[in-house]
Order: sequence, then structure tokens, then C-alpha cells
Amino acid sequence: MEKIHQIVAHLDSENAGLAIFSDPVSINYLTGFYSDPHERHLFLFVFRDREPLLFLPALETAGAKNKVPFEVIGYQDSENPWTKIADAIGQLSSNKVLAEFDSLNLTRYHGLRQAISADFADLTPLINRMKLIKSADEVAKLMYAGSFADKAMQIGFQAISLEKTETDIITEIEFGMKKAGVSKMSFETMVLSADNAANPHGHPGNNLIQNDALLLFDLGTENNGYMSDMTRTVAVGQPDQFKKDIYHLCLEAQLTAIDTIKPGVTAAEVDAAARNVIAKAGYGEYFNHRLGHGIGSSVHEFPSIMEGNDLVLEPGMAFSVEPGIYIPGKVGVRIEDCGVVTETGFDLFTQTPKELLYF
Amino acid sequence: MEKIHQIVAHLDSENAGLAIFSDPVSINYLTGFYSDPHERHLFLFVFRDREPLLFLPALETAGAKNKVPFEVIGYQDSENPWTKIADAIGQLSSNKVLAEFDSLNLTRYHGLRQAISADFADLTPLINRMKLIKSADEVAKLMYAGSFADKAMQIGFQAISLEKTETDIITEIEFGMKKAGVSKMSFETMVLSADNAANPHGHPGNNLIQNDALLLFDLGTENNGYMSDMTRTVAVGQPDQFKKDIYHLCLEAQLTAIDTIKPGVTAAEVDAAARNVIAKAGYGEYFNHRLGHGIGSSVHEFPSIMEGNDLVLEPGMAFSVEPGIYIPGKVGVRIEDCGVVTETGFDLFTQTPKELLYF
Repeated sequence: MEKIHQIVAHLDSENAGLAIFSDPVSINYLTGFYSDPHERHLFLFVFRDREPLLFLPALETAGAKNKVPFEVIGYQDSENPWTKIADAIGQLSSNKVLAEFDSLNLTRYHGLRQAISADFADLTPLINRMKLIKSADEVAKLMYAGSFADKAMQIGFQAISLEKTETDIITEIEFGMKKAGVSKMSFETMVLSADNAANPHGHPGNNLIQNDALLLFDLGTENNGYMSDMTRTVAVGQPDQFKKDIYHLCLEAQLTAIDTIKPGVTAAEVDAAARNVIAKAGYGEYFNHRLGHGIGSSVHEFPSIMEGNDLVLEPGMAFSVEPGIYIPGKVGVRIEDCGVVTETGFDLFTQTPKELLYF
Repeated sequence: MEKIHQIVAHLDSENAGLAIFSDPVSINYLTGFYSDPHERHLFLFVFRDREPLLFLPALETAGAKNKVPFEVIGYQDSENPWTKIADAIGQLSSNKVLAEFDSLNLTRYHGLRQAISADFADLTPLINRMKLIKSADEVAKLMYAGSFADKAMQIGFQAISLEKTETDIITEIEFGMKKAGVSKMSFETMVLSADNAANPHGHPGNNLIQNDALLLFDLGTENNGYMSDMTRTVAVGQPDQFKKDIYHLCLEAQLTAIDTIKPGVTAAEVDAAARNVIAKAGYGEYFNHRLGHGIGSSVHEFPSIMEGNDLVLEPGMAFSVEPGIYIPGKVGVRIEDCGVVTETGFDLFTQTPKELLYF
């Protein structure tokens, strides 16, 4: 309930009567209860002056009551959720309500406006800020998830064969993870060979693994509600010198960026550290995405490590560092680790080697 | 482009200048291009009087240009997407804009309002209506996806063993599907034994398969962008007579509901047909969810087959019929098939037998 108390303190300071959460990931983060009821409605109402209320489809009531120590109200599919919410909420202590604008869709917003006569302001910055600074327990969970990404990568490396397709290798990785107790990958596993890797968001398919080329793996796992995410690019056979040069340039960019990370540095400066290495070598136009993204209970969250983001890094911030160089038809490389800012630097969650490996 | 033309015709009839889509599933449905850029932005703008425009993260531009025959504009992470959208859209032919309220979050809505000075109205009913009536091609794809659900169920049945856990069986099903070329299950596969099945949204875990009990499988696949979804409940060993009676009651409810389906009947009437069978036997309170949900390019879509929904069924509507009876601590049964309304009845997408099977 400590996180709920933080929300209540924020309501006090904002002189708001109610905070409304509709993002399943945020609700899980605040309460430990996870459910995604799709087009049905799930709301966590945190009041300034009374106990919270979880509102959800009736069939989830029993499960939720086992998880949260406060009121749970279920609605039947045949009931109007908005009038039921209006009744449950009643009169508020303030005319101001906070909601997560990043995840509240307009249909739900209009329904809530019917139920609650108040002014709505954005709660996204607060929840992003809370999620931004990871506790020791959260860092331990991210480290644990990272260790599974390392295991998954090893399975992928061992599966490399010129007789297999990208999809074959993905199948082996995900089967191995299931056997290791991972119920869910944190996103669609990517294994991309040669030209297919030169597309930064390419899709794997029935392409045979190519010889004398690079092979890119981007994968992650979910463990205890926390995510891992790692990318490695390896050599199959003997790629030509140009491909190896691009690999080493990307690696230099990643290591340089990681070296700059410590409290007081801005997100934009970390991005620039990697980008300058690649730009100076003349390949700036081929690194066409931000350097990194926050990671925690979602695989992509606040902050973006990118140009223009003047966020000053603090201990407890966790994010990816993933420069990439994609030269269409020629070569694609990305190298990614996630880690957490410490008092003095950046601790990585993943340990798979980064010298160019040959298979 | 035929679906885009339908949107343009709707803009004409509504005297609106622009339709805005932000749901990746809708954009895929309309254009054949799928991408989910998470917290980045993806919009399809369909104009009344000029060619459509796809707006998305710069790194996806190349992939999108290969897929859609109209303008594609990418934005860099460091750019302000809203000013870029304002520039790209310019002056509209009408002050009225339509958007999908069900999937447009408030942050994006506020951004678009900055970029586009117009009144926003809801497009969800139109797109739901379009998705609601499946074309012959879509029905063929749903049939094809259904055949994979049947295969997955067979793999699950063959995997049943008292030495295995729920998770073990899920692993075998999903591995088998990967090998069969299915890149994605349409939702988290459920294998629930005994008491765990008595929870309508129970979660599978390391529970051993129990003897003399029922075992519930709920699974689906994605094939060519279309979904399957099926539930079967089978006997392991010799469940007692009560469990078998509840099974047969649930089956009777499902078959009765399916028998009522034809053009002219309402969604509520189909729900009531199943619900009455269960209620008359005295178990109405244990069937605590709607009878079914639409299915197509999403696993849950319009329409809900439930009390209060007076939608009149028409040929081409596709949905699930899935009564369930969950008596906590005693027994849980659900039987589900998806199908499509025809001129005279309802054609099922899945063919796995429904007499109580013993393992």
C-alpha cells in the first residue's frame, strides 16, 4: 500500500479528490493485481479521503478480492458501468480529478465524465515519475529477468545452423524459455539474418540463416511482472570486413554511451554520446531511432533516451542502451543492454559477451 | 483500398473532412499494414478529398511504403509529432473530424486537437459496423484459423498425463503450433485442472493434472491476421456424476444457443437461449459472463452476445458461443466455438467433438 499512499499524498498536494487509473500495467504496479479485461472496464479509484476502490468485470471480483485489501466492485456485462461508478463514488471532496491521459481512451473518458462531475487533469507525469525510480526490490527483479534474457540468448546461439530458418530458432528459444518456467516473452522474439537485420523493425520469417553474414537476436522475458530486453548481433561464417567494421562501430557507440551514464548527466547527453561515435564515422543517417527506452513492469516505459530529453539521470532509473546501424541491403547491427543508474555509473541487467562472436 | 473507399463514402455522408485511426488493429484491417509502435504514434488519416496519409515513427517508413499505395510520413523521436501532423494535414474541407474514441487515448487526443482545429466525433460505430459483417474472404480466413485451434486442441488432448502440470501441457501446445507455422497464439493459452477451472478467468500454473476431475482448455491462434478461439472441457479419469451433469448442462446450453442463431434473431435472444437452460436447472448464478464476443482480426471485438444487446443478427457476423458454469471448489466447465451467421443458421469455425471425452 506504500505506492497508494504516495498517490494520496499527491492528491493532497494537488488539492484533488480522486486519482483514476485505467492502465492494467499501472494498476498491477500499484496493487499487485493484474488483469486486462480488453473492451470491458477496469478502474482503480484512489481517493484523497477514503479507501481505494477497484472496479472491474463481475467475473473477476473473486480473484481481485484475494489480491487487494480494499473495496472491490464488479459489474455485469448487462449493467451500465458508468451509473454504477457514479453510485459507488458519490460526492468528492474536491472538484479536481486526476487520470492517466496516456492510457485513458476517449470512450472511457466520456463515460467517466458522465459519472463524475469534475475537472480532469493528467496523472501520467506522477505515475511515470514513480515508475521511473526503481526500488531495490524492483532492481533485483529486473536483474533476475535479465538473467533469463542471457539464458535465452545462449539457447539462440546454440541453435544457429545454416539449415534452419529464423522462425526455427525463435521456436527453440521460446520453447527453452517455457521449459525454464518463463510464461511469457516480453515482446515478439526477433531473429533476423543478413539483409533482414538491416531493417530496424524487420520481421522474422522462413528465411534460412545466411552464411558469411550477421545475425541479429532481439529478445526479452517477463519474470514476476518485470521485463528484460537484450539485443546481440553475431557473425555466421566469415562476414566481410565492412560488416565487421560496422559491428565494431556500433559496439564502440554502445560502450561509449554506457561509460557516460551517471547521476547528473542528461538523457540527451547519453544519446549524443552514442550518436556522435556513429556520426563521426559517417553513418549517422543509418542510426535512425532513439538510443534507449525505460524498462520496468513494461518493456517500454519512461524515460526515452533521446535527443531533446533534458531529464537528469538519478540512481534507480532503468533503461536500455541500444544503438543500431542499418544500411539497407548491406548490413544491420544493434547491440542492446538494459541497466540501472547507480551512485557512480550504470549496472547492466544482462551479461552476454559483446565481442563479435563467430558461429 | 475498398475499405478505405467505404470510409470516404462515410465522410461524405457525415459531411466530415477527415477520419483518424490510431488503433493498430483497425489500421491493419484497412490497409494490410500492421505495426504497434507502443508509446510512439501511429495514425492513418483518411481524407474526404485527397489520398490517405499514414503517419508513423521514421524507422518504420520503409516497411510501410512497401505495404501501402499512398503517402507515408515518418517522424523522428526528437521531432514534435503534433506540429508535423499539423503541417501535413493543412486545411480541411470541413470542420468535422471523426476518430476512433475506443482506442484514442487522451494524450493523443490533446495532441491531435493542437494539430487539427476541428470538432471530433466518434468513428467507432462505423468501424465496428464494417468489421462486424465479414466478407467471404474473411470467413475463409477465420475457418482456416479455426482449423489450427482444432489442431492445437488435439495436441493438448494427447499431452494429458497425471505426471504433467498445466504449464507443461501449454508448452507442448504452443511448441506444436510454432512448428506448424503459427507465429502467435491469439491470447494466453489456458489449461486449467479441477478447482482451477472453476475460476472463469483462472490462471494456469504448476498444478499437476488431477485425476477424476475435469480439465479445461481455452486456446486460439492467429493466422494471416485472423483469430481463432475455442474452449473444451474434458474428463480425466472418472469424474463424479455431479461433474458430468454440469458438463452436459453446459453442452445443452451451448447447443441450444447455436440452434437459435439465424438472421433476424437478436444477440440478447441467443444469450438468453443458453442462459435459460442453465437457470432452469438452478445454476444461473454460476454462469456469470456474457455468452459470447465478436471475433475477426481481433480475438474480442463487436458484438457482445449478451443480455440487453438488441442487435439483430445478419449473415456475416462472426462471434463465439461460450456458456460456462463455475461452482467454486466443485467444478468448472466452459464449451466454446466461434462461427459465422449464414442465411439459415450458424457455421462453426472449429470441429473438435463436444461429447464428454475421457482421458
